[in-house]
Amino acid sequence: MKKIKYPASKDWPKLLRRPSQPVEEIEQTVKEIFSEVRTKKDVALKKYTNLFDGVELETLQVSKSVLKSAKTGIDPSLAAAIHTAKENIIKFHEVQRSGALSVETMPGVNCWQIKRPIQKVGLYIPGGSAPLFSTVLMLAVPAMLAGCEEIVLCTPPGSGGQVDPAILYTADLCGIEKVYTIGGIQAIAALTFGTETIPAVYKIFGPGNQFVTAAKQYATKFGLAIDMPAGPSELLVFADDSARPDFIAADLLSQAEHGPDSQVILVSTSEEMLDEVAREVDLQMAVLPRKEIATKAIENSKLILVENSEIALQLINDYGPEHFIVNSRDEGFFIDNIQNAGSVFVGPYSPESAGDYASGTNHTLPTNGYARQYSGVTLDSFLKSISFQQISCDGLKSLGPVVEIMAEAEGLQAHRNAVSIRLKQIAKNE
Amino acid sequence: MKKIKYPASKDWPKLLRRPSQPVEEIEQTVKEIFSEVRTKKDVALKKYTNLFDGVELETLQVSKSVLKSAKTGIDPSLAAAIHTAKENIIKFHEVQRSGALSVETMPGVNCWQIKRPIQKVGLYIPGGSAPLFSTVLMLAVPAMLAGCEEIVLCTPPGSGGQVDPAILYTADLCGIEKVYTIGGIQAIAALTFGTETIPAVYKIFGPGNQFVTAAKQYATKFGLAIDMPAGPSELLVFADDSARPDFIAADLLSQAEHGPDSQVILVSTSEEMLDEVAREVDLQMAVLPRKEIATKAIENSKLILVENSEIALQLINDYGPEHFIVNSRDEGFFIDNIQNAGSVFVGPYSPESAGDYASGTNHTLPTNGYARQYSGVTLDSFLKSISFQQISCDGLKSLGPVVEIMAEAEGLQAHRNAVSIRLKQIAKNE
Repeated sequence: MKKIKYPASKDWPKLLRRPSQPVEEIEQTVKEIFSEVRTKKDVALKKYTNLFDGVELETLQVSKSVLKSAKTGIDPSLAAAIHTAKENIIKFHEVQRSGALSVETMPGVNCWQIKRPIQKVGLYIPGGSAPLFSTVLMLAVPAMLAGCEEIVLCTPPGSGGQVDPAILYTADLCGIEKVYTIGGIQAIAALTFGTETIPAVYKIFGPGNQFVTAAKQYATKFGLAIDMPAGPSELLVFADDSARPDFIAADLLSQAEHGPDSQVILVSTSEEMLDEVAREVDLQMAVLPRKEIATKAIENSKLILVENSEIALQLINDYGPEHFIVNSRDEGFFIDNIQNAGSVFVGPYSPESAGDYASGTNHTLPTNGYARQYSGVTLDSFLKSISFQQISCDGLKSLGPVVEIMAEAEGLQAHRNAVSIRLKQIAKNE
Repeated sequence: MKKIKYPASKDWPKLLRRPSQPVEEIEQTVKEIFSEVRTKKDVALKKYTNLFDGVELETLQVSKSVLKSAKTGIDPSLAAAIHTAKENIIKFHEVQRSGALSVETMPGVNCWQIKRPIQKVGLYIPGGSAPLFSTVLMLAVPAMLAGCEEIVLCTPPGSGGQVDPAILYTADLCGIEKVYTIGGIQAIAALTFGTETIPAVYKIFGPGNQFVTAAKQYATKFGLAIDMPAGPSELLVFADDSARPDFIAADLLSQAEHGPDSQVILVSTSEEMLDEVAREVDLQMAVLPRKEIATKAIENSKLILVENSEIALQLINDYGPEHFIVNSRDEGFFIDNIQNAGSVFVGPYSPESAGDYASGTNHTLPTNGYARQYSGVTLDSFLKSISFQQISCDGLKSLGPVVEIMAEAEGLQAHRNAVSIRLKQIAKNE
């Protein structure tokens, strides 16, 4: 691990720079697959599944009976754990529900705001080395709570053409009926245009590799929304000398095992802490099954020594980490003043893993510095706000002249007329 | 106006299709200007301002004294109107403020969510035929309420190099100190990369022509967020036979005068109403100063006759209008069931102009069908949510085993370890 002592703030941008994403390069591939899925639909999906996943699919949709019987394929203790996690995620997202907001801005001028579900949403669950059933929970629970009418889940088939039973069990537990064994760029294209089998949606959620990420960004050109731009996962820990190096090391490694491009940063006011954590990382890493991946990520990780909590905070806000663990006597200072972070874990017994799986918070979070301007996935990600107004005759008598003057000043006479014609009628009625 | 009677729902997509936006075509221009502004900064801004606006700028920033003295350049009645509008906009956006949300998902597992302002935001105010000081209000008021630290306003210079005093007055009234006389693609590039004079921001808000729209979309490739994709303004009115044709006609024309590409649709269960509105439109249009523009928009507008309110609702939800006026005995049915609309105006005395200027609701709204998945600008547009968690030893004793099982099942042993190492320590302490 590379140790940097007291870096000057002018050097932070370089120090904190993330690896750039080669999105542009693969845009051509994305364009081609989108174009083919748009015209050839299911046929194109099967072709690309054969090409990329090495699987000949007969049907794209997972049947109801396969969904319902998934439970038999998983350990009862896992089923119980998923159930507990789901309950916690429900609780945290349910508390985010806001009722109608209403205000009478002037007597007789009633304005209100109501949130309505996005009717059709697509959830993408990556395949790869691990069956990410936790991501099913993180996306399906708020989608169901929001009341989205049509929830479509796409996930790539395993080598035998099947989907991991834990993913199917979780989808079924969350009430999702439309599950398709399609992954990669072709899945995002299917959700964008719709095919004979897969319905088009209005917004696509979920993580993925660089191909899926590029495909999601391309989908926005066709009028779709996406949850957020994605990049490699990140963890920044602030630890003063009150922290436990073994806990911190375990947290850094839990991030490092995600992938060789995972971003891992430890900031401390104590050089001893940095050194002890580095030693602990080496010890713990030696016995990890995903040691090779973790080693690569740890090689690129940084130990940063800073003068005090204020400077640490500034640096952390500049970086905008996806995950931020704070183990410090000053934890209140960081809670009160953190501006840019996806999710914050406070105190020695709040590991990132808790939020990754089961505490209730969402693990779909802004990476790559996007915490500066994006929230992670919340209940609101599946809703949109509509504003309403209803104005009485008396209300328009007060408000109307204001609108007339402003419309006139902007040179929009017809805007003014829409008020004037009503004010004239009100005067006539009186 | 084209009248369509009882269209079959299979024909709605074609009937309701918006004109496509030629964004791709101008991407090359956008790329070039971005590249030049990125490297040559202020020099490039001045060059393009000369080229596109025909103005030689000495300084890019509007001085404090010019900002402060803008009030003398506008009519006191306009200043008073802007002040009233601002108060109403404050009231409607202030009610959107949500405090910290907190829940103990399991005993000892405390999760909460706090919203924090986006620190740096850019507001783009278009130039063109009308000084859109109303848009300054709609963007600056929620930005100030949210607590954004750095608010940067860009607007193109008029032919004399000046900015309209109403825009400057409104900016000053809202407490904005950083106002720059730069417009078009070069302004968006400046907000993206920063120059010697103009600070880079994290999110860009505001309407604009197709060049500005394409530039905003391009800015997202450099890590910026934007308020929403933009298209020509739209109004859909539903009127049953209880509506007043003269009021409706005035509303349709207020939309039509925005531009020849404005979208204007009237849906009714009464053919008589459609015909009467068409007659009224002709009468009222004849005397409008922006008659030429309105005539073109009205030529493309549609009068759609439908069987009943249920079918009307379906069609409206399929279209997802930016503005939706409902003048009907059934207004409650539409309020309760509208799914996709930016802003809804209920009853005969709630013209769209009220919301465009002064009732309090925001006029920055999703066009082009984006109401299906995007909200208009709200207080939340200037905030992002951060989730927090703090877990006690007892909390981790309940939650930890759940996380261990799930992490193990996803093959992420280091995630499991981060919990196990803590549970062991807790056991040791007991």
